[in-house]
Amino acid sequence: MSPEEVCDSVKAKIRPSEKEMEKLKKVGDEISRRMKSVLKDHRDIEWKFLGSYARNTWLRGQEEIDVFLLFPPEMDNEELEQAGLEIGKRLLDEYEISYAEHPYVKGRVMDVEVEVVPCYRIRHAGEMKSAVDRTPLHHEYLSDRIRGLEDDVRLLKQFLRANDLYGAEHKVKGFSGYLCELLILHHNGFLPLVRDAREWKRNTVIYPCEGKTEDDTFTVVDPVDPERNVAANLSLDNLARFVELCQDFLESPSEEFFFPRRHVPDREELGRIIEDRNTAILVLEFPRPELVDDSLYPQLDRALRKITMELERHDFEVMRDSRYSTDSKCYLMWECAHSQLPSIRLHSGPPFDLHKHAIKFRKKIRYGRPFIRDGRYMVYVKRKYVRPEECIVDMALNSDLGKHVSEKIRDEFVLYSGADVSEISDIRMHLYDFLSVRA
Amino acid sequence: MSPEEVCDSVKAKIRPSEKEMEKLKKVGDEISRRMKSVLKDHRDIEWKFLGSYARNTWLRGQEEIDVFLLFPPEMDNEELEQAGLEIGKRLLDEYEISYAEHPYVKGRVMDVEVEVVPCYRIRHAGEMKSAVDRTPLHHEYLSDRIRGLEDDVRLLKQFLRANDLYGAEHKVKGFSGYLCELLILHHNGFLPLVRDAREWKRNTVIYPCEGKTEDDTFTVVDPVDPERNVAANLSLDNLARFVELCQDFLESPSEEFFFPRRHVPDREELGRIIEDRNTAILVLEFPRPELVDDSLYPQLDRALRKITMELERHDFEVMRDSRYSTDSKCYLMWECAHSQLPSIRLHSGPPFDLHKHAIKFRKKIRYGRPFIRDGRYMVYVKRKYVRPEECIVDMALNSDLGKHVSEKIRDEFVLYSGADVSEISDIRMHLYDFLSVRA
Repeated sequence: MSPEEVCDSVKAKIRPSEKEMEKLKKVGDEISRRMKSVLKDHRDIEWKFLGSYARNTWLRGQEEIDVFLLFPPEMDNEELEQAGLEIGKRLLDEYEISYAEHPYVKGRVMDVEVEVVPCYRIRHAGEMKSAVDRTPLHHEYLSDRIRGLEDDVRLLKQFLRANDLYGAEHKVKGFSGYLCELLILHHNGFLPLVRDAREWKRNTVIYPCEGKTEDDTFTVVDPVDPERNVAANLSLDNLARFVELCQDFLESPSEEFFFPRRHVPDREELGRIIEDRNTAILVLEFPRPELVDDSLYPQLDRALRKITMELERHDFEVMRDSRYSTDSKCYLMWECAHSQLPSIRLHSGPPFDLHKHAIKFRKKIRYGRPFIRDGRYMVYVKRKYVRPEECIVDMALNSDLGKHVSEKIRDEFVLYSGADVSEISDIRMHLYDFLSVRA
Repeated sequence: MSPEEVCDSVKAKIRPSEKEMEKLKKVGDEISRRMKSVLKDHRDIEWKFLGSYARNTWLRGQEEIDVFLLFPPEMDNEELEQAGLEIGKRLLDEYEISYAEHPYVKGRVMDVEVEVVPCYRIRHAGEMKSAVDRTPLHHEYLSDRIRGLEDDVRLLKQFLRANDLYGAEHKVKGFSGYLCELLILHHNGFLPLVRDAREWKRNTVIYPCEGKTEDDTFTVVDPVDPERNVAANLSLDNLARFVELCQDFLESPSEEFFFPRRHVPDREELGRIIEDRNTAILVLEFPRPELVDDSLYPQLDRALRKITMELERHDFEVMRDSRYSTDSKCYLMWECAHSQLPSIRLHSGPPFDLHKHAIKFRKKIRYGRPFIRDGRYMVYVKRKYVRPEECIVDMALNSDLGKHVSEKIRDEFVLYSGADVSEISDIRMHLYDFLSVRA
């Protein structure tokens, strides 16, 4: 199949059905009706549909309606937050409160997910008080311009979703919805974008003018706020993976790029792979702190980095590390080159002819007797850790890995190692990718 | 005891006994007598006693007489060698031929070891044709000057012998007899030398003027050949060990520095030490090529270095290596940090945005699937060797380790590893030092 044929076929599958469209229209109308009555007492507050619902760029089955409340800029913050929550609660059939820069209400209307987000009404980015104030400007910029390209936006979103690249949040570090729409708009469609992206480099500037950055930051300038890089949260490695996918897709176009068949290995298969590698694979499992992903993942990353650095410092040679979470559990994982080290290590001292230092060094009692190599004193000392498990357990129990993470770890943790890790069914697929044997 | 008392006590033990002196005098007289008759047909050849016998600086029990034949400089080389051998054979009761720059005869007269060495008679080093021609000049320089310091020369020789530092040959890389005498002469005795040596550095110049070299070469200028460094064969590490010994001796003087009690561990003790370290200790044993030490050791060193580099290249982390030989066997040995490595290793590829290279890299089929880290392609590849034994055996069988060494190894070799090496009784003491646990 040609890329065009693949795209046409995929579009038909990801475009919301007539029924879904009608249903969302109906919910939208219901929200408008309710808003009229809810806002009766708040003459100074405007409201708007924003996001993929407003621009008709949502993916089939991913219905979600964003309702923004636009408050006058002179209103104080507390008042905004309070009114925002109150309006949200009155609008929704069921709700919960979530926390971004402001608290906001998330819930359902007629069984469709709806978010009610308060912000300040501004005319340009210079007036912005928090990032969310910019969202109405984004919509204003895109709403007319994107018309006719909605299916291409969906293609890109599906392409990214299928490859774990969709979303700017910390967990993913991929492409935001807004970035998707800007890219489609700028290239005038999915395939022109993909063709262009094959050549992207780490210092590419896509928009507003094509060029290069000095500091190796891939850049897409926000048309409503030229100081801002819309791709700031996209990690280097995810940029690289996107470039790779674009190259691969055009080389052999197929729907698998949009609907991948992921192989989920069973316990036996994963166990065999692990034993075959003869590395030290370690997974630290602990209860998930009660945090949303965007708060949790930075903390997991910090804890991971801290333990990895300690493993490296003690010569276990971390080949790769990763983190993962489910609703109830967190996982930190490592693959080390060495499952066991000598009980001793070589410790380097001063040159023999820095006599004062050399004499001091020789007088310390250690495991071995100091000897001279290449004119320098050396000695064998006992290692603190012989196995990576010892290092990780010590860190888990005694090191500050961040308040929330450390609290949960001290409640309870399990450290799996070797083929035993294949017993954790939650992370089998993640481990399979982690070991990078995905075919 | 004071250093002086220790030295006096040791001097009495290492000075040749009256009986030994008398015996050597008798042998010397016998050689003189024989020489008269042997040289009847060679009017143009002079002869001399040189070395420690001639200067009365040999150690008790180390009797050896050096007889030098001084040929006229106009004689051609072949004639010199032929006449030298002929005279030697006629002089000695039993003999064998050894090879230095010229072949020479080694044997016994009245059961004392005698060497008969031919050289050219020269007046100064500028006329020298081979290094051995300089030896009579050395004797000429020292013979009067060293008088009265003979016992101090013996002290230094014994001090060095006891600590494996005596001899300039490749196996030892220590202090030659001539260097010992020059040092004693320059410092006017053993104790002043030892006091001074505590402060020596790698760039020290001892003689003729005290100073420093630019290129970190410890230097003692040859008074009969100012271009020559008499300490050229002294290795940096042996210089450092000498400095350490001088510091230690003056800190706590004792006869042990001259007559060390070496602990020879038994099989059990050595096995326990090895197991306790949890390293990979490997010993390659093979028959000794028929070579004198000074030809053998450079070859052992080259073979050792070659295998060590290969072990390093395959990530086994050589902590220390060494070589040893007996009359019939050679031993190369290593201590590696890892007795086993993962079956895979991380192989680094090009950055993703060197697109041409990256695409080529991705197309190669390997153990794993390429992935991206920090913007660069990486892939797992199978290792060639998982155990250091595999690497050493492969090198032993298939690599050129030098003609003589490779020939012998291909005849027969044994590779010991782990606690098994403690079964090789020949090298137990050497291994004990090698592991640097000597108390």
